[in-house]
Amino acid sequence: MVVIMQEGATAEQVAQVVARVEEAGASAHVSSGERVTVIGVIGDREDLTALPLEAMPGVERVVAVLKPYKLVSREFHPADTVIDVRGKMIGGGRFALIAGPCSVETEEQVMESARAVKAAGGHMLRGGAFKPRTSPYAFQGLGEEGLKMLAAARDETGLPIVTEIMDPRDLDVVCRYTDVLQIGARNMQNFLLLAEVGRLDKPVLLKRGLSATIEEWLMAAEYVVKGGNEQVILCERGIRTFETATRNTLDLSAVAAAKLASHLPVVVDPSHATGRRDLVLPLSLAAVAAGADGLIVETHPNPAHALSDGPQSIPTAAFGEYAARVLELARWAGRSVA
Amino acid sequence: MVVIMQEGATAEQVAQVVARVEEAGASAHVSSGERVTVIGVIGDREDLTALPLEAMPGVERVVAVLKPYKLVSREFHPADTVIDVRGKMIGGGRFALIAGPCSVETEEQVMESARAVKAAGGHMLRGGAFKPRTSPYAFQGLGEEGLKMLAAARDETGLPIVTEIMDPRDLDVVCRYTDVLQIGARNMQNFLLLAEVGRLDKPVLLKRGLSATIEEWLMAAEYVVKGGNEQVILCERGIRTFETATRNTLDLSAVAAAKLASHLPVVVDPSHATGRRDLVLPLSLAAVAAGADGLIVETHPNPAHALSDGPQSIPTAAFGEYAARVLELARWAGRSVA
Amino acid sequence: MVVIMQEGATAEQVAQVVARVEEAGASAHVSSGERVTVIGVIGDREDLTALPLEAMPGVERVVAVLKPYKLVSREFHPADTVIDVRGKMIGGGRFALIAGPCSVETEEQVMESARAVKAAGGHMLRGGAFKPRTSPYAFQGLGEEGLKMLAAARDETGLPIVTEIMDPRDLDVVCRYTDVLQIGARNMQNFLLLAEVGRLDKPVLLKRGLSATIEEWLMAAEYVVKGGNEQVILCERGIRTFETATRNTLDLSAVAAAKLASHLPVVVDPSHATGRRDLVLPLSLAAVAAGADGLIVETHPNPAHALSDGPQSIPTAAFGEYAARVLELARWAGRSVA
Amino acid sequence: MVVIMQEGATAEQVAQVVARVEEAGASAHVSSGERVTVIGVIGDREDLTALPLEAMPGVERVVAVLKPYKLVSREFHPADTVIDVRGKMIGGGRFALIAGPCSVETEEQVMESARAVKAAGGHMLRGGAFKPRTSPYAFQGLGEEGLKMLAAARDETGLPIVTEIMDPRDLDVVCRYTDVLQIGARNMQNFLLLAEVGRLDKPVLLKRGLSATIEEWLMAAEYVVKGGNEQVILCERGIRTFETATRNTLDLSAVAAAKLASHLPVVVDPSHATGRRDLVLPLSLAAVAAGADGLIVETHPNPAHALSDGPQSIPTAAFGEYAARVLELARWAGRSVA
Repeated sequence: MVVIMQEGATAEQVAQVVARVEEAGASAHVSSGERVTVIGVIGDREDLTALPLEAMPGVERVVAVLKPYKLVSREFHPADTVIDVRGKMIGGGRFALIAGPCSVETEEQVMESARAVKAAGGHMLRGGAFKPRTSPYAFQGLGEEGLKMLAAARDETGLPIVTEIMDPRDLDVVCRYTDVLQIGARNMQNFLLLAEVGRLDKPVLLKRGLSATIEEWLMAAEYVVKGGNEQVILCERGIRTFETATRNTLDLSAVAAAKLASHLPVVVDPSHATGRRDLVLPLSLAAVAAGADGLIVETHPNPAHALSDGPQSIPTAAFGEYAARVLELARWAGRSVA
Repeated sequence: MVVIMQEGATAEQVAQVVARVEEAGASAHVSSGERVTVIGVIGDREDLTALPLEAMPGVERVVAVLKPYKLVSREFHPADTVIDVRGKMIGGGRFALIAGPCSVETEEQVMESARAVKAAGGHMLRGGAFKPRTSPYAFQGLGEEGLKMLAAARDETGLPIVTEIMDPRDLDVVCRYTDVLQIGARNMQNFLLLAEVGRLDKPVLLKRGLSATIEEWLMAAEYVVKGGNEQVILCERGIRTFETATRNTLDLSAVAAAKLASHLPVVVDPSHATGRRDLVLPLSLAAVAAGADGLIVETHPNPAHALSDGPQSIPTAAFGEYAARVLELARWAGRSVA
Repeated sequence: MVVIMQEGATAEQVAQVVARVEEAGASAHVSSGERVTVIGVIGDREDLTALPLEAMPGVERVVAVLKPYKLVSREFHPADTVIDVRGKMIGGGRFALIAGPCSVETEEQVMESARAVKAAGGHMLRGGAFKPRTSPYAFQGLGEEGLKMLAAARDETGLPIVTEIMDPRDLDVVCRYTDVLQIGARNMQNFLLLAEVGRLDKPVLLKRGLSATIEEWLMAAEYVVKGGNEQVILCERGIRTFETATRNTLDLSAVAAAKLASHLPVVVDPSHATGRRDLVLPLSLAAVAAGADGLIVETHPNPAHALSDGPQSIPTAAFGEYAARVLELARWAGRSVA
Repeated sequence: MVVIMQEGATAEQVAQVVARVEEAGASAHVSSGERVTVIGVIGDREDLTALPLEAMPGVERVVAVLKPYKLVSREFHPADTVIDVRGKMIGGGRFALIAGPCSVETEEQVMESARAVKAAGGHMLRGGAFKPRTSPYAFQGLGEEGLKMLAAARDETGLPIVTEIMDPRDLDVVCRYTDVLQIGARNMQNFLLLAEVGRLDKPVLLKRGLSATIEEWLMAAEYVVKGGNEQVILCERGIRTFETATRNTLDLSAVAAAKLASHLPVVVDPSHATGRRDLVLPLSLAAVAAGADGLIVETHPNPAHALSDGPQSIPTAAFGEYAARVLELARWAGRSVA
C-alpha cells in the first residue's frame, strides 16, 4: 500500500508511520516531495489489511496497491473457470441460457415454463421457492413444496435447476433438490451464507448486490472460493442509481470488467435489471455482446397472473423467438451454445 | 393504487384491467382524459400488493396510493414510541448517547471505553463481537468471548449493551448477553433475521441499508413489528452515493422524514457515515439538530491500534469533550438527556 | 395528473384543490377510498406544469400522467427520425461510426486520425477544439485553429465533422466549420445553448448529463426541437454512480428505453463512459446489440502522448480491427452501414 | 502523483514511465514490491495534470497526491475568507440568513417577501429573474423586469440581493442590479460563466452541481478565484441519489468537509435540497449545527400560487418563527448573526 501524508505532516509523524509498519513486519519506503511525503509499504496482504494507518496523526489517506482478492483473480488463475452443472457447461466460451419463472407457483406453471425453456434450446431452469420480499405482506414462496415442483420439471426435461438459498438453516433441504445455489443480491454480503456455501461441492450463482462495487462482488466470491468451493458463477443484475425509468441500471461495463479481473464465469439477469419486458431482449443481446457467459431470464406462462415480477417476464409463448435471437448472437460472438 | 394506461390503450385493455381488479375483490374507478385513461383502484392493502397489473397489456405504470407499511406509520400510531433499555429511555423526547469501540478486542479496551462513555454522560455501550467484514482476510470478531467482555463492562458501569447479531443461529447466545440487538446495514433486508428478532421481547436497533430507500427501511421495521416486537430503533448510518470524500453520505433528511412518517425513535451513526474522525463532531451536532433521538458513535482508547474503524474513532481521552457538546445541543433542542 | 391526498385530508382541503384546478381551466375527478382520496386532473400540459398543487394543504403528492415532453415522443412522431449529415445518414436503421481524437492537438494528429477512421469504414470525424475541463490548469483546446484542422481533414477524407460547442458566443465560428454541433454532458441543461442551437438548421448531438434521467435528457432535446431544429441525435455517455472501477456507468438500458420513447436516433460514447481502453470494444458491441444507431469513439495516433483522454483512446493502428468488428455486428443486427 | 504498475509489468514498461516523467521535467522514484512496482512522481502540479501516464503500457492506475486545487485550499490560505456584501459579512464566524421567493413574480410578492425577511432578522434577499427550468413549457422568469423589482425591494429594506446569472451575455444587466451573483447547480461546470464572473469584483454564490464531488465543486471555485475574484461563497443544495422521498439528498458532510478543505464560506440551501416544506426547518438547524456560514431559503407570501417551488417555500407569515429558531442556534454555535 501507499501512505500519503498530509501537507505539513511532521518528520516525527512520518517516523511513527514507518515504525508502525515495521512493527507489523512490513517494510516502508519513504519518498518526500516538496510538499507531500509518500510512504510505500511492502508486506503480506493479510498483515496489511489489519493496519489502521489512516488513524495515525499526519496521514492523509492510504491507497491499496494489491487487489484485496486473490483466489478469484486472473493473476492467480489465468485460464477461464468452466463449471459443469449436470453436464451443462458454463464459462470458457460455453454459453448457458437459464430461464424460468420468478417464483414457483404451481406444478403446471413450472412444468409449462420448463418445457418452453427446453424447447427453445435453454440450458437450465430457474425458479424461486424461498423469496426475499421487500414487503412482509407479499408472497414469500412455496418452500420445499416448490423445490419438489422444480425437481419434477427437471426429471421431465433434463434441465438442471437454479434456485435461491436465503437461510443457512435451509441448506440441507435446498441442496437435496437444486443443482445451482443462487445467492440473491440482498445476500451478497451475508458472509455466513457465503461461508456455508463455500464448504459445499455445488455450483453457486452469486448475484451482485444492489450497491456493491465490482471489487466487493469479487470479495464476496473470494469468501466462497476461500472456503474451498471454486464453482462460483457471478451474476450482474443491475445496480441502484438515480434513474427511475428502469428498475435498476444494468451495468454491462461490470461484466466486461469482471471478466478481465477474474477467471469466473459471469452471467447477466436482464429481467430484474430492467423490470420491463420490452427491454429484456435488447439488454439480453447487449449482455451477450459485452461478453457474458450466460443469461438468467424470467419467463412465465401467464405474466398478468404471476405472483411476482409479471411486468418483466417473457410469456412462454414468446420465449422461443427470444431464445433464438439470443443464441444466434452468442454463436456470432464465438460462444458454444450446445 | 392508481393505474395509468398508455396513450393509445384500447377500451378492451381498460376493461381487462378493471376485470382483473374486480376479480381480486377490489373496485376500479375509470377516468378518461383526452389522451390518457387513469384507473383508481380501491381495496385491501394485502390484496393489491399481489396484483401484477403492470404486466397487463396497455398499462403504462402503477402508482401506489397507500403507504406499503402500516404498523410503523404515524397514521397507525400517532404518538412517539418510547423504548426502555434497562431503564434508559429512548424516543419521545428522551435522548440516548450510545458509544464504544467498533470491535471488541480486549477486556481492557472494552472496560476503558465503557468507563469513558459512562464518565461523559453516555447512556449505552456499543461494541461488536460478530463483525461483518468485506474481506475474508480481515478480523471477524471475538464471538461469545467478546460478548462476555461487554457484559463485564456493563456490570461495572451499568451501561446497557448494544451489539450486532448476524446469524439467526447465534440468537440464543447473543440474547444471553445483550440489551439491544443491532441489525447491521448489510442485513437490513435479511428477512429471516428480521422475522427472528420480531419474535423476541428485546429492543432492536435497525440500521438502514447502504442503498435502502426510507420506505424500504420502514418496511424492514414493519417485518419486525409485524412479528410482535414493537421495540425498534431506526438507525441512519449513511447511504452510498458517488461522493468519495466521505465513506458514505449521511442522509439527515432521512432522519427528519422518518420521524414524520413513523413513530419509532431514530438514531444516527456519524462514525460509519463519514469514516473520518474530523467530521464526527459536526455531523453529530447536525444529527441532533435534525431531530435524532440518539447517536451511536465509535470511541477507542487507541485508534491507531484498533482492529477496525480506527480512522473514525474518537480517542476515549477526547470523548468527554465530544459528549459535552452533543448533550448540550440535545438539551438546547428540548430533549431530556438524563 | 393525479393528486394523491394525505390520509386524513379534510373535505375542505379536497375542495380547495378542486377549486384551484378549475381556476386553472382544467377539470378534476375526485375518487375517495376508505383512507385516501385521489383527484384526477385533466387539462392542457402547459397549464398543468405551472400548477403548484403539491404546495396545497392536505396534498401528499402529485403524479404526472402525461409525459412532460411531446415533440420528441414516439406518440407524436411514430416513425424514426433519420438525419442527413452531408450525405451520411443516421437513424431509421442507418448506422454511423463516429471517431477521432478527444482533443484536436496538431494537424498531423487530426489528419492521421481521420485517415484511420476513413480507412476503417467510419462515417464521421470527431475532435474537440473547445474543451470543458474540470481543472482550470488543464489544456482547454485550440479554439478556431483546431476547427481549421478538422476542416482540413474533412476536405481530404470527406468525413463530416462533429465538434463541441460550449459558448453561445462561439456559435458563428463553430458553425462555419462543423457539420454536427455537439452539446456536452455538462451542458445538457444549459438551456440558453439549447435554445440557440434550436434556431439553427444543423444537426445537434446531445449528450446525456452525468446525472440526468432519461426524461430530463428527452426534455433537453424537446428544448431544441421546440426551437425548430428537429435534427437531434441523442448520445448516452455514462452516468455517475457509486462504482469507481469505470469512469462512469454506461447505461445501455437508457439506449433501448430512449428508442422506445422517442423517434430520435441514439448513439453511444463508450470511451467517456468507461474511461478504459480495454472496455471500449466490448461495450461498443453491447451498445450496437442494445439498438444504438451509432457510436462516437476516441482514437489517437499516440494515446500515451494525448493531451486528454489517452487512457481510453484506441490507437489508430488498432482502429481498423475495432471498426471491422463493430460494423459486422451492426450488419448482423440489420443495420445499414454503407 | 503515484503510478501503480500492473502485476507483471515489465522492467521496460517501468523504464518507459520513468522516461516519460523525466521528459516532462518531473522526477520519478521507483520502489518495487514482490508483486507490484510503484513509482512516485514529483514535479509541478500543472505539468503533471497533462501527463497521460494511465495510457501507457503496464500502468494499472495513477493516484494523485497533491490536491488538484490550490487557491481555494486551506493550505494556501489558512484563515477563513470573510465576504462583505454591502456591509453584511459572511464567513469567519459571521452568519447570514438569505431568503426570498424562488422566482420573482410580482412587485407585491417580492416586496412582501423582503419585508418578512427583514423583519425576521434575515440578512439578504434571494429571488430568481432568469430561471433554469427542466421543461421548455415552464415559466422562465421575468428577466430584467424582475431584477428591477428586486432592486426596489432592496431600496426599501436595505437587504442586499442574490440572484442567478445563467448567460454570460446577461452579465452587464444582472450586475447592474445584483449584489451577489448566483451560479446555479446546473452551471457549476459552465466554465465560461465561471471564467466571466472570475473577472468581476462581485461576490459569487456557487451552488454545488447535482452530481458534483466536493473536489469538483472546489475546482469550480478555483476557476473563479484563478480569474482574480476571491469572493466565492460555496452553496450545498443537495445531491442526486437513489432516494426519492426527498427531491435531493442534502449532504451536510460536504459542508463540514468543505470547510476543512477550504477557507471559503459555505452556505446551505435546504429548500431545493429537500423539496418539502416540512423538512426545511430541521435541515436548516442541522446545517447550522454542521458548521454552515449561512442559509439560503425560500419564502413566499402564498406558496400555493407560486410559479415555482411552492411545495418547499415557507409562507412569509411563518418566516419569523423559522428565522428565530435558526438564528438562536447560530448564536448557540458561536456565530455572530448581527
